[in-house]
Amino acid sequence: MRKLSISLLLTFSGFVVIGQKDDSALIKRISDEILVNGKAYENLRYLTKQIGGRLAGSSGMVKAENWGLKVMKENNADKVWMQECLVPHWVRGGKDYAKAMFIPSKFEKKSRPYPSGTTKELDVIALGNSMGTGKSGLTAEVLLINSFEELEKRKDEVKGKIIFYNYKFNDKYINTFLSYRDAGQYRGQGPSRAAKYGAKAVIVRSLSHAADNNPHTGATRYDSAYEKIPAVAIGLRDADWLSEQLQKRDINITIKTNGYFLPDTIGHNIIGELTGTEFPDEIITVGGHLDSWDNGEGAHDDGAGCVQTMEILRAFKAIGYKPKRTIRFVLFANEENGLRGGSKYAEEAKAKNEKHILAIESDAGGFTPRALGFSGSDEQYKKFLGWKDLIAPYGCNEFIKGGGGADIGPLNRVLKTPTASLNPDSQRYFDIHHARSDVFEAVNKRELELGAVNMAALIYLVDKYGL
Amino acid sequence: MRKLSISLLLTFSGFVVIGQKDDSALIKRISDEILVNGKAYENLRYLTKQIGGRLAGSSGMVKAENWGLKVMKENNADKVWMQECLVPHWVRGGKDYAKAMFIPSKFEKKSRPYPSGTTKELDVIALGNSMGTGKSGLTAEVLLINSFEELEKRKDEVKGKIIFYNYKFNDKYINTFLSYRDAGQYRGQGPSRAAKYGAKAVIVRSLSHAADNNPHTGATRYDSAYEKIPAVAIGLRDADWLSEQLQKRDINITIKTNGYFLPDTIGHNIIGELTGTEFPDEIITVGGHLDSWDNGEGAHDDGAGCVQTMEILRAFKAIGYKPKRTIRFVLFANEENGLRGGSKYAEEAKAKNEKHILAIESDAGGFTPRALGFSGSDEQYKKFLGWKDLIAPYGCNEFIKGGGGADIGPLNRVLKTPTASLNPDSQRYFDIHHARSDVFEAVNKRELELGAVNMAALIYLVDKYGL
Repeated sequence: MRKLSISLLLTFSGFVVIGQKDDSALIKRISDEILVNGKAYENLRYLTKQIGGRLAGSSGMVKAENWGLKVMKENNADKVWMQECLVPHWVRGGKDYAKAMFIPSKFEKKSRPYPSGTTKELDVIALGNSMGTGKSGLTAEVLLINSFEELEKRKDEVKGKIIFYNYKFNDKYINTFLSYRDAGQYRGQGPSRAAKYGAKAVIVRSLSHAADNNPHTGATRYDSAYEKIPAVAIGLRDADWLSEQLQKRDINITIKTNGYFLPDTIGHNIIGELTGTEFPDEIITVGGHLDSWDNGEGAHDDGAGCVQTMEILRAFKAIGYKPKRTIRFVLFANEENGLRGGSKYAEEAKAKNEKHILAIESDAGGFTPRALGFSGSDEQYKKFLGWKDLIAPYGCNEFIKGGGGADIGPLNRVLKTPTASLNPDSQRYFDIHHARSDVFEAVNKRELELGAVNMAALIYLVDKYGL
Repeated sequence: MRKLSISLLLTFSGFVVIGQKDDSALIKRISDEILVNGKAYENLRYLTKQIGGRLAGSSGMVKAENWGLKVMKENNADKVWMQECLVPHWVRGGKDYAKAMFIPSKFEKKSRPYPSGTTKELDVIALGNSMGTGKSGLTAEVLLINSFEELEKRKDEVKGKIIFYNYKFNDKYINTFLSYRDAGQYRGQGPSRAAKYGAKAVIVRSLSHAADNNPHTGATRYDSAYEKIPAVAIGLRDADWLSEQLQKRDINITIKTNGYFLPDTIGHNIIGELTGTEFPDEIITVGGHLDSWDNGEGAHDDGAGCVQTMEILRAFKAIGYKPKRTIRFVLFANEENGLRGGSKYAEEAKAKNEKHILAIESDAGGFTPRALGFSGSDEQYKKFLGWKDLIAPYGCNEFIKGGGGADIGPLNRVLKTPTASLNPDSQRYFDIHHARSDVFEAVNKRELELGAVNMAALIYLVDKYGL
């Protein structure tokens, strides 16, 4: 009996070793295909340079959808379709503008140094979803507020003022997404929290630690209980200047923004599918979001995730890989200011009673891959951890608890689908995130491709072994 | 007795835990200091933008040495000095130039497509240490050679020709230094191996996988048995074009380069020291090399290593850390085309019978840190591995066998000093290495700083616990 057990054990171990060798070889084939024949970089060049910004409702959105459909077909998906959804249609409406003016009556005439002029134009950009100032703009005295705590303490001074939130990105975090989460509340809640106390407008320090002065946009969320006051983000050098000046003298700022909403319009998730050969009803989703802010080219956010998604499809077909399970490659609509694409995808999955076994998203930039994050049951997490040694040689040598993405969040909430994320190196991301510097040139070809390699490896393993 | 053992064990474990907590806290202080108050990035801006290229013997070298000395003093080293060494003095001597011309008599007049013109200027740069063509340049027919194997097979065709080595960077390696090592032999040995069979000059495909057309220089090594023929590197797009053309028609190329040597001149290693409080005779060296090629700003190679080295000094002083052992911060002379600085440092260490316990170098770019490499005894390696969990949160989560650097190699050879290296992410390095694109703008502030953090952490641990 004991002998038998041992021999069974040996046999079993033998299978495992052979299985791992096969897996390792298959993953190497995927990697070689992507690194040698990859199309992700040239696809990204087209998306960013020929189409550019593609906010929900814009003509860029329509062009990008048609392009995505075309590339999915070129990459030989078994099926390709557009999944319709209503998307919000916010329009920037013109150039955002702000000018600071020292208030003449309060000049400290004898102090040094004098300002070199009495006005200074500031580099600003209206926050997404924010309402414009009207044609003639808006002028008011500025109140420097460094935190919500300070806002509450000084709430009686807020009325009629422009609130300048100068809360800084915390440089001490190694993972810069922690700094983003920490400071992000000022962009999201700042306008309404100031409006509550009668502020006329808001200026938010950009959510970044960049060395340049580019302002970073991004969606704000108005609380319907208060007035929807105009809101801009300001570049970091101008934020430092303004904060320094405000400690010495009073300043008025004139702001002009032009944002407004048109009625909701029709957008689409772009979906390609490889139909499973053994378990076609078990679905693995991989995706990124196709929309981007209008001030840059949406190269890292999230052109990268889109071209990586389609590159995995291309590579699977190129090496003749036939998945057991169904793999869906999805370019989601409207992540930036509505999340309607991800919501629609989950809604339809539920309505059709689909079985989704994993969704993975790339929406943290096309930088060098470092980690895969995973959210699921403890048992699933254990299985996921077991694949680490196979994937680590390609960059993701950290397998961490907690993974997902905005677009696949609804799938997790509605169907309890386990979710994963590609976590590339985060150091450069907030230099360019939502700024005019998020352009093709900021993306490195091999880093982009390696992101696709690491995700493809995980998808292959989940397809082969289930989850 | 048993009870006593357990209680001793507990006490000991207690010490270990407390020790690790202290270490973790101290490393966090170093990290915070560097990420919040760091000067590495602004120092790099000065070195690259105000001084620029600084090849051994050039005026840039002299300016950089004086700058290094000044920053070491500003960063409050206990001692600062210049260590003199003779350096080679290669001079590029003018703009390198190459033009391809289709050989008219051999045009296949009826074939399509015709070339759009009959000449094309190529983007080339002379290899470092190579001899110029003379004022009137040199014209010869080109022979496409894809490998040394092919060279040997076709050696009878070589005489009087320009050999174009088109050996490609292997995209399949994940660590791009493996591709560099693989293709690097063509730059190093290519000219003399072609001269052996009578070639008049050599064109080498740049050691890169960049998407652009910038040529990459770097030192070549003539074999004194053969003629020192001129040699250039060619940009990748031009290399692809030339290779394609040569498969269709014969081509002459005119090359003009101007390289020559002046007599050896005086250069210096720049050294700052924190003198140990307990074991001043035990020396830890950290460094990078101050020289750089003349065609770029030497930002990643190796301005990054220099400013990181001095940043560690600054941070140790800023937090009031007093090392037990002596720490030397060294900007080495002449790594690129002679290694005289590193050799001198080792030679003097030996002459003075110094005890060097570790040398660590940063010379692989200022990119996001991923690994620390180590070369030493098995026992030392085990000790090194024991520190991984303390350093991993800052980026270097791989502790690998084998580490060092060109400049600290002599110390290892002469004194058997254990050596270590900072291994940052390698994906972007060969896009810019030795090319005109190795400029300040290619460096990310936080990635640069994190490199310093990870090295500082290792130095702190070696200083505290020995090796």
